[in-house]
Amino acid sequence: MRRNVLRACFAGETDSHGLCKYRGQRLSVTAGIGIGATLTAAGDRLNKSRDTSHSGGLLERIPVIPIPSVDAASEITPYQPGQVAVNRSTAVMKYGFPSLSNIKSRESYVTSYDPRNRTAAWVIEQLNAETVTGTSDRKFCDFKEDDSVHVYHRSSNADYKGSGFDRGHLAAAANHKWSQKAMDETFYLSNVSPQNPHLNQNAWNNLEKYCRTLTKHYQNVFVCTGPLYLPRQEPDGKMYVKYQVLGKNHVGVPTHFFKVVILEKPRGDVELRSYVMPNMPVDEKIPLERFLVPIESIERASGLLFVPNIMKRTSSLKAITAG
Amino acid sequence: MRRNVLRACFAGETDSHGLCKYRGQRLSVTAGIGIGATLTAAGDRLNKSRDTSHSGGLLERIPVIPIPSVDAASEITPYQPGQVAVNRSTAVMKYGFPSLSNIKSRESYVTSYDPRNRTAAWVIEQLNAETVTGTSDRKFCDFKEDDSVHVYHRSSNADYKGSGFDRGHLAAAANHKWSQKAMDETFYLSNVSPQNPHLNQNAWNNLEKYCRTLTKHYQNVFVCTGPLYLPRQEPDGKMYVKYQVLGKNHVGVPTHFFKVVILEKPRGDVELRSYVMPNMPVDEKIPLERFLVPIESIERASGLLFVPNIMKRTSSLKAITAG
Repeated sequence: MRRNVLRACFAGETDSHGLCKYRGQRLSVTAGIGIGATLTAAGDRLNKSRDTSHSGGLLERIPVIPIPSVDAASEITPYQPGQVAVNRSTAVMKYGFPSLSNIKSRESYVTSYDPRNRTAAWVIEQLNAETVTGTSDRKFCDFKEDDSVHVYHRSSNADYKGSGFDRGHLAAAANHKWSQKAMDETFYLSNVSPQNPHLNQNAWNNLEKYCRTLTKHYQNVFVCTGPLYLPRQEPDGKMYVKYQVLGKNHVGVPTHFFKVVILEKPRGDVELRSYVMPNMPVDEKIPLERFLVPIESIERASGLLFVPNIMKRTSSLKAITAG
Repeated sequence: MRRNVLRACFAGETDSHGLCKYRGQRLSVTAGIGIGATLTAAGDRLNKSRDTSHSGGLLERIPVIPIPSVDAASEITPYQPGQVAVNRSTAVMKYGFPSLSNIKSRESYVTSYDPRNRTAAWVIEQLNAETVTGTSDRKFCDFKEDDSVHVYHRSSNADYKGSGFDRGHLAAAANHKWSQKAMDETFYLSNVSPQNPHLNQNAWNNLEKYCRTLTKHYQNVFVCTGPLYLPRQEPDGKMYVKYQVLGKNHVGVPTHFFKVVILEKPRGDVELRSYVMPNMPVDEKIPLERFLVPIESIERASGLLFVPNIMKRTSSLKAITAG
């Protein structure tokens, strides 16, 4: 398993279950930054039943348990590759939603709101050559409260002021140059999390740019972004989740952020790349692929599910978890 | 505002906004344990617009923003007081749901699951003289994994073993003596949170017993119970949410628990009592009314909403927040 200088940022490497090693060896995938054990301390029982001897086998063998109640993906109008939907939030549903809590649909993204932490649980966007091109400009945009969220559960600009944290976009503004309205809507504070300024302006920004460059090589790029609140071991040997909250509204400061990228290839094949970065300064010289993690890690840590919905849309899913 | 020996357990009393005092004086309600500021650091803007000069005015003036998407309360069969529904989870919807995430309906309660913390976000029960009476016995019950929850997001008995925490029921077993099946279902680990053993077996148990005695005086008693993960100030002056997680599945240990009790009185009047206890030993000699808090405090801290749904069912809601 590959490690890098960031390993100290991630909790759970001292976990006694040795899942990192297990994952790296038996599943034939490697977590770029050694975050596997942190995120996935519960894999033993499940993994034991898997035949993981060949590449790509992991995701094909994850038990697919449908998200209860609503199959969002089945409700949408059939989608044609390359089609520009009138409302992109319909097209963005193609691979379903990782959860069904407090869904909000915008011009160019769909989000699930976490009213306890006063930020999104996740935001999904659909990027392609058309969405990332245009004359829209963020100089016309202002961060604004999302008044569709109850005032008890909403963050405000005042919460961020003087906090030392940036208002970090989850759906990136520059992904939506095709429409000023779409770009404006990325400035709702419900699409924002407190983010370390260095991270926001360097390594994370590079990851966002990389997602946009992928539109040159893939017809559609679906990007799902969200906060994580990961446990770490303290000197007493116990595991704790600990995160700061900002301002009068107690806006949660994530310990990490994830980005799950779903890439459409010819013949209906789908490629999955899932990244995690800590909410702290990250040396931008470290290659982005070092932040790749198994999707299962994000699914366990976030309480979300990605793979079951994706598997409804493709029979060929390849997860890229090693650089 | 009344304070007691537990004040040190609650974060945020050092909050500079002085909302506790504000709440106590201007809203004509008192928080029994001084938890107001902790839970409700964001009240200024909203409160300024309220005329709160008379008792009962608070809740009548809270802006009612409907929970999006589904009005659960309007979907149910009309309910007759005293009626024993075939499936009590229908009747229990009378006052709606505080959120609409991952809803599960059982024989005798309805719950919303929090897949990230591996426990319920809330559980609602309907108690009356019939439900709390019967021959069902917990000696026939065993704590069991909830296999309706994805294996990634489920807690197991092993997570609790040796942790020092009880498997604390949210919907209490003894509330459902009317049916062995109903009692059995309270033993799903999705209805359980890690709870300090002293609390579970003493003060919290007394609160549960008290809810059952209320069925002698009120035709129906709706009880909603859940975990809280409250921030507290640390020596650096910043506010942090910090909580332990247990076992391989990282089951969240709540910092506090809430119980919201909705009491039906004659002529459709509704009385509301909302309690918070810290997840630590609590002297059972302290009167229960000392743990009463304003419902708004729970709504802000939990990300849930109770009052808007209740107000759809009554024009007369009295919140009891002082002993």
